Amino acid sequence: MLVVQKFGGSSVADAERVFNVARVVTDKYSEGNDVIVVVSAQGDTTDELIEKAREINPDASRREMDMLLSSGEQISIALLAMAIEKLGFPVISLLGWQAGFQTNSVYSAARIKRIQTERIQNELDKKNIVVVAGFQGINRFGDVTTLGRGGSDTSAVALAAALHADICQIYTDVDGVYTADPRKVKNAFKLDEITYDEMLELATLGAQVLNNRSVEMAKKYNVEIEVLSSLKRVPGTMVKEAAKMEKMLIKSVAKDTNVARIMIVGVPDEPGVAFQIFSRVAKAHINVDIILQSVGRDGTKDITFTVAADKGAEAVETLREYIERVGAQNISYDTGVAKISIVGAGMETHEGVAARMFEVLGDAGINIQMISTSEIKVSVLIDEAQADRAVQVVHAAFFEDSLAL
Amino acid sequence: MLVVQKFGGSSVADAERVFNVARVVTDKYSEGNDVIVVVSAQGDTTDELIEKAREINPDASRREMDMLLSSGEQISIALLAMAIEKLGFPVISLLGWQAGFQTNSVYSAARIKRIQTERIQNELDKKNIVVVAGFQGINRFGDVTTLGRGGSDTSAVALAAALHADICQIYTDVDGVYTADPRKVKNAFKLDEITYDEMLELATLGAQVLNNRSVEMAKKYNVEIEVLSSLKRVPGTMVKEAAKMEKMLIKSVAKDTNVARIMIVGVPDEPGVAFQIFSRVAKAHINVDIILQSVGRDGTKDITFTVAADKGAEAVETLREYIERVGAQNISYDTGVAKISIVGAGMETHEGVAARMFEVLGDAGINIQMISTSEIKVSVLIDEAQADRAVQVVHAAFFEDSLAL
Repeated sequence: MLVVQKFGGSSVADAERVFNVARVVTDKYSEGNDVIVVVSAQGDTTDELIEKAREINPDASRREMDMLLSSGEQISIALLAMAIEKLGFPVISLLGWQAGFQTNSVYSAARIKRIQTERIQNELDKKNIVVVAGFQGINRFGDVTTLGRGGSDTSAVALAAALHADICQIYTDVDGVYTADPRKVKNAFKLDEITYDEMLELATLGAQVLNNRSVEMAKKYNVEIEVLSSLKRVPGTMVKEAAKMEKMLIKSVAKDTNVARIMIVGVPDEPGVAFQIFSRVAKAHINVDIILQSVGRDGTKDITFTVAADKGAEAVETLREYIERVGAQNISYDTGVAKISIVGAGMETHEGVAARMFEVLGDAGINIQMISTSEIKVSVLIDEAQADRAVQVVHAAFFEDSLAL
Repeated sequence: MLVVQKFGGSSVADAERVFNVARVVTDKYSEGNDVIVVVSAQGDTTDELIEKAREINPDASRREMDMLLSSGEQISIALLAMAIEKLGFPVISLLGWQAGFQTNSVYSAARIKRIQTERIQNELDKKNIVVVAGFQGINRFGDVTTLGRGGSDTSAVALAAALHADICQIYTDVDGVYTADPRKVKNAFKLDEITYDEMLELATLGAQVLNNRSVEMAKKYNVEIEVLSSLKRVPGTMVKEAAKMEKMLIKSVAKDTNVARIMIVGVPDEPGVAFQIFSRVAKAHINVDIILQSVGRDGTKDITFTVAADKGAEAVETLREYIERVGAQNISYDTGVAKISIVGAGMETHEGVAARMFEVLGDAGINIQMISTSEIKVSVLIDEAQADRAVQVVHAAFFEDSLAL
């Protein structure tokens, strides 16, 4: 088997952890597999480098930021390779450009265009364990680029796709994908498998297990991902095609408190108002999640939408001039809200899932402020103070036998 | 003019010093010059990285050590480029491989084979200040190599040679080359110029102003070097061809206390003994400096030689078995010695320089234990406690008017 393994920055934060990773890697190699390991920068290295840059020039060019930040993975691949050498295994470390990662030229947020796999293939043929710097590549000018934060997941999946690896194992702080946050819901359990689409919905819901772009790429190239822990040696959760797995009604209940609700009261009930508002928000590079527009009454209507919590004030400022000009009554924002979501491919073919969710929330006295749905997801916005309890009652309703649908 | 400037690790140790370097560089650029800047890793970065590696694997391969250590310059070039951006000048940083440094494959002590200058030339044509990572290159396998410690001087001189630069300015902690250590000899003065050969002799004498390999390369390709300080904005010392300068009798008086004297008493006065001794020392990778052999008497002779202070015990251990086997009386070592040297191309054509040195030392009551001479150098070994006074009286004899030869 050809196995691609990816370890994040906290997995290689110090010498002891580097050796832990080295043992996971060499155990897999000892079973007779070809192994490629993608690693991120150690622990806080990236943040420390960013701080060094800020001290000198807060407006440094992205090209030089990428030059600076890509040194972080260079350190971690060398140290991991040294630990693997110490354990007595053949190993070689490769930088992004040496591993053939060719990207476009959007510094700090580059996209992989292709991977020239000759060098890696050559090292695998020599039976070397290949340690690859995640998060980085080069553009057509021969300049170093980075894929943006979380990009090491994408590096790993892209390598697995390019080399037709049998599996891409993403090692994280958690040992898999759970039906809910196990720290908050005591009956939460680990899923054996989940579809790409479900994983994508969970990622956007703030369950930061896998970087979204990497899941999209895995789906596109049909790369099977396993999410697992580098500390516990137990099977994790497989992320793969829906056709290959048994359908569960829903897979997970997620909570996202990184939400601000923007309320605009009394805008004219005329065509083009929503366009004017949301084009201004888009121009300010603020992502909008849920949108709710009231039915017009007395020639005015209300528009409510959600953005990331730290964008609330900025969204209001961006719109204030327009809001005043069209004579709306008021614009305000509120960060005391949370988004609770259920995700599962099963709900596509099963009626009543959303209704059941609304019912258990209502029974628990939790008021729903906004609703958003997709084919495999239902999200509701509620008071932040009730968020943990909401997750518990929804989890109980869908996953715990006594309360099953 | 095309100017290559080189700054060491202490010159870029923190944000303030990085800006000081940026101002030196941009001032030179503002005068209408093309400027290439070679920098080392910041302050203690290299030592910190070596410590990280030791913690994981003290016997790490040199290939992975080079991968690790080359990240140090990557950080410093990015930070310096950011500072130059902040001052409003066009700039680009380049890693060793991007700057075209092709080396052989002796990891950790690689030699530059050629520099492919297209990329740098291209950036100069665009009127960019080019910041280049010193100390590093790539070999024919596309792997990162380092030139060994002090290699950034060599990077700078090699670039100056390849691009036919008008001058290579090496910025150091001192503002030039002095007739003696100015902290010890109050009348010591800075030389305006010095020949390559004189500089080479001074470098081997422990005056660590310039890396030796870089001076050899500068001599070979006739690159004019200026040694100067990044803090004091005053002219430094030019290192160039002898033909271009007025000859001074001697240029500098140097002291080296990093010396151990090994004494072997009573070895058989037979052919092959010296070979047996010094081949054993060479095999242990210990460099021998001065050698003194007594005239044979009663069938035995004494052999005395010097090595670096920290190699004294090892040299004795290396030889003990052989010494006992041939029935020599005794082997011992002594680190309480110092080497005092005078260097100057002028002495080639001027008799009596060595004699004058011996005379002033004798007048000062300083006993000479060993003597070594080359065409442009005279070294004597004396008691370490008398070293500073020896430098003072020799300096006075050759440089101070009242005592001139």
